[in-house]
Amino acid sequence: MPQRLTTADADFETRFEAFLAEKREAEPDVAGAVRSIIADVRARGDKAVIELTEKFDALALTPETVRVPAAEIEAAWAATPEKTREALQTAEARIRSHHARQLPKDDRYTDGLGVELGSRWTAVESVGLYVPGGTASYPSSVLMNAVPAKVAGVKRIAMAVPARAGELNPLVLAAAHLAGVDEIYRIGGAQAVAALAYGTETIAPVVKIVGPGNAYVAEAKRQVFGRVGIDMIAGPSEILVIADGGNDPDWIAADLLSQAEHDPSAQSILITDDAGFAEAAEAAVERQLKQLPREATARASWETHGAVILVSSMTEAPAIADRIAAEHLELAVEEPEGLLAKISNAGAIFLGRHTPEVIGDYVGGSNHVLPTSRSARFSSGLSVLDFVKRTSILKLGPEQLKALAPAAMELARVEGLDAHGRSVGIRVNL
Amino acid sequence: MPQRLTTADADFETRFEAFLAEKREAEPDVAGAVRSIIADVRARGDKAVIELTEKFDALALTPETVRVPAAEIEAAWAATPEKTREALQTAEARIRSHHARQLPKDDRYTDGLGVELGSRWTAVESVGLYVPGGTASYPSSVLMNAVPAKVAGVKRIAMAVPARAGELNPLVLAAAHLAGVDEIYRIGGAQAVAALAYGTETIAPVVKIVGPGNAYVAEAKRQVFGRVGIDMIAGPSEILVIADGGNDPDWIAADLLSQAEHDPSAQSILITDDAGFAEAAEAAVERQLKQLPREATARASWETHGAVILVSSMTEAPAIADRIAAEHLELAVEEPEGLLAKISNAGAIFLGRHTPEVIGDYVGGSNHVLPTSRSARFSSGLSVLDFVKRTSILKLGPEQLKALAPAAMELARVEGLDAHGRSVGIRVNL
Repeated sequence: MPQRLTTADADFETRFEAFLAEKREAEPDVAGAVRSIIADVRARGDKAVIELTEKFDALALTPETVRVPAAEIEAAWAATPEKTREALQTAEARIRSHHARQLPKDDRYTDGLGVELGSRWTAVESVGLYVPGGTASYPSSVLMNAVPAKVAGVKRIAMAVPARAGELNPLVLAAAHLAGVDEIYRIGGAQAVAALAYGTETIAPVVKIVGPGNAYVAEAKRQVFGRVGIDMIAGPSEILVIADGGNDPDWIAADLLSQAEHDPSAQSILITDDAGFAEAAEAAVERQLKQLPREATARASWETHGAVILVSSMTEAPAIADRIAAEHLELAVEEPEGLLAKISNAGAIFLGRHTPEVIGDYVGGSNHVLPTSRSARFSSGLSVLDFVKRTSILKLGPEQLKALAPAAMELARVEGLDAHGRSVGIRVNL
Repeated sequence: MPQRLTTADADFETRFEAFLAEKREAEPDVAGAVRSIIADVRARGDKAVIELTEKFDALALTPETVRVPAAEIEAAWAATPEKTREALQTAEARIRSHHARQLPKDDRYTDGLGVELGSRWTAVESVGLYVPGGTASYPSSVLMNAVPAKVAGVKRIAMAVPARAGELNPLVLAAAHLAGVDEIYRIGGAQAVAALAYGTETIAPVVKIVGPGNAYVAEAKRQVFGRVGIDMIAGPSEILVIADGGNDPDWIAADLLSQAEHDPSAQSILITDDAGFAEAAEAAVERQLKQLPREATARASWETHGAVILVSSMTEAPAIADRIAAEHLELAVEEPEGLLAKISNAGAIFLGRHTPEVIGDYVGGSNHVLPTSRSARFSSGLSVLDFVKRTSILKLGPEQLKALAPAAMELARVEGLDAHGRSVGIRVNL
């Protein structure tokens, strides 16, 4: 059964703290194994990648077949049923137009002293996109990662996707085609991350690697960080639904289960001020669970990590939501704007009774790569900003240097940095 | 002697690649030691912090003396000489006004379908600022880290600075006072990072930790990442100067040495198209080195990691600069805007003959916390963006949900996520 917490209970704070501190996912220690794989790929390039792919993915490749040929990608697109193609196109267009608004603007200006300052944004030169294999090989994730990179102006996107025993999800190829991915390699695991970071004879290295993956992929990303940039390391998915008694319990139950079905480590939480509604929603979850093809996964998630929090009044909800800092937050109440204004920690917020979180997974336009495990307290979802970097610009003439020299030289002096002081002083005869 | 590379030489590419791949800093393996310290602070709180401070900093604290009292901070400000105080105020005001322009704007709009979308930015609730002790205890770094956090709207800034044998740099306290730091603790090392991340009886935990530190501090930040956010892990400093023959060799030598004096691992690189100027600049470096109080440090840096790259024409410089991706880049040429437009990888760019990099260290207004070790290829200097996070907002009414439902449900279907499909379908009777 999911946990039941009631803010009016004397032990609420203790139990809520313990709930927040729960680790939902084991972190297997794969650091050593990953270190060897990366060293091997750095030393032996394609040879190592091919051997490791044979070993882990039961797939025999040659340097000629590592890369998926353009014809195979086009064929996957052509073979995609019309209805699916249209759904992908709807998603792609909406993601593109929303993300286009995120492009940061350069800023160049002259201040009162005549000093020119600026911030200039440029695209990361190349990006590696990791896509998991098997059942977690989602075309929607390809769009969510590749489209912001394209919008940012990244010139080269190289995708790696493992093809266990040769099998690739054709819809992943189709989505990559639609999003404009430039290269696709049928490799996965730590060896794919190493190949993207360091390059091999057939794969040119990239500057940044993004995308979800298993424990090996996550650890490999951690280890190559510095050599290349990486995105966040995503944990299991979460949803927090704040719902009043005016909701249909079946709708809210469906939303809670849409996260629970992802993973036994996923987490679904309901906050409500209506005890009767809480009971009705729990009953609806139980009914719907029985009809789900992924019942086992969803049930494990709901019964191990799920929670129903009963608040005495909705005014208590924002502070609790900020402490949970959920990846996804639904405000299923009549007037969601009031709650919205009081909550600041959440990856994405879905307003009102007609905005199920799933819309954001696919076709809302916003990104579905969002901060998990309470990291919405300090980080943001994937955006165009992850594919650009900012350069500061400073330009002084002799007059401006003369004006600022005394302060700069004084600070250099008190910090004991004589060469710093000299590089200013030598220009202004101080 | 610094390396000399000439693009016209047959072995240039090989030598330049090797130069780029050089590791300038040993990475001592302190992971185990740091893990124990963090576990100890989590388990025993103040007791552990106090014992570790006695052990590592030769300082006996009590829970009552861990925090620097307001009176001591105010006294440090009052005792700061007028000239230094004015220099700090100039720096603070310029940093503040430049960073105010970085505050991202919320975006809320309705698209053609009537779907409301948005991006909302909110400040991180609390920030821990680490400041090193000893000779690297720089007041300018306090301003560069604290001011952007204040501009972002961070409500609580808690600073940790080790006080070896009780000694604190009064200018660090003065800068903290000026910048509006809320709390200062006289602790350092991994124990300070652990205390900020997990909290103790006397130190409330923070949400994000920023600031430079030694290998223990850097490793502690890596290990607490996830529990809290962290900024980049900074490596040793770098400067790349692109200079034509029209410069005074002494000016450019002074700039090269201003980075070299930081650290034996620092790196100073000169690119020029004028062989005579290269020789003159090298000779000037040699002359100036002998006059530097920090000669040993600067000489070790220059002779071990320094380089002079002779290009056949300045048109070769941008591609080389992009591969170096320097933290600091000076364009000491007559018309720097032309070069600027062709270079995209650099933390900060300083234009023209009268903009020594040191101005950016102190009073330019831009931030001096910048990406090192070639990471300017994928990351940016510290800014207001490091102290805020973005929440996506989505709001549909029944009409919009009906319009988007078919595409969302089709993608849920092909991804095999039935509960996803149901949470949309149940609302639109599909």
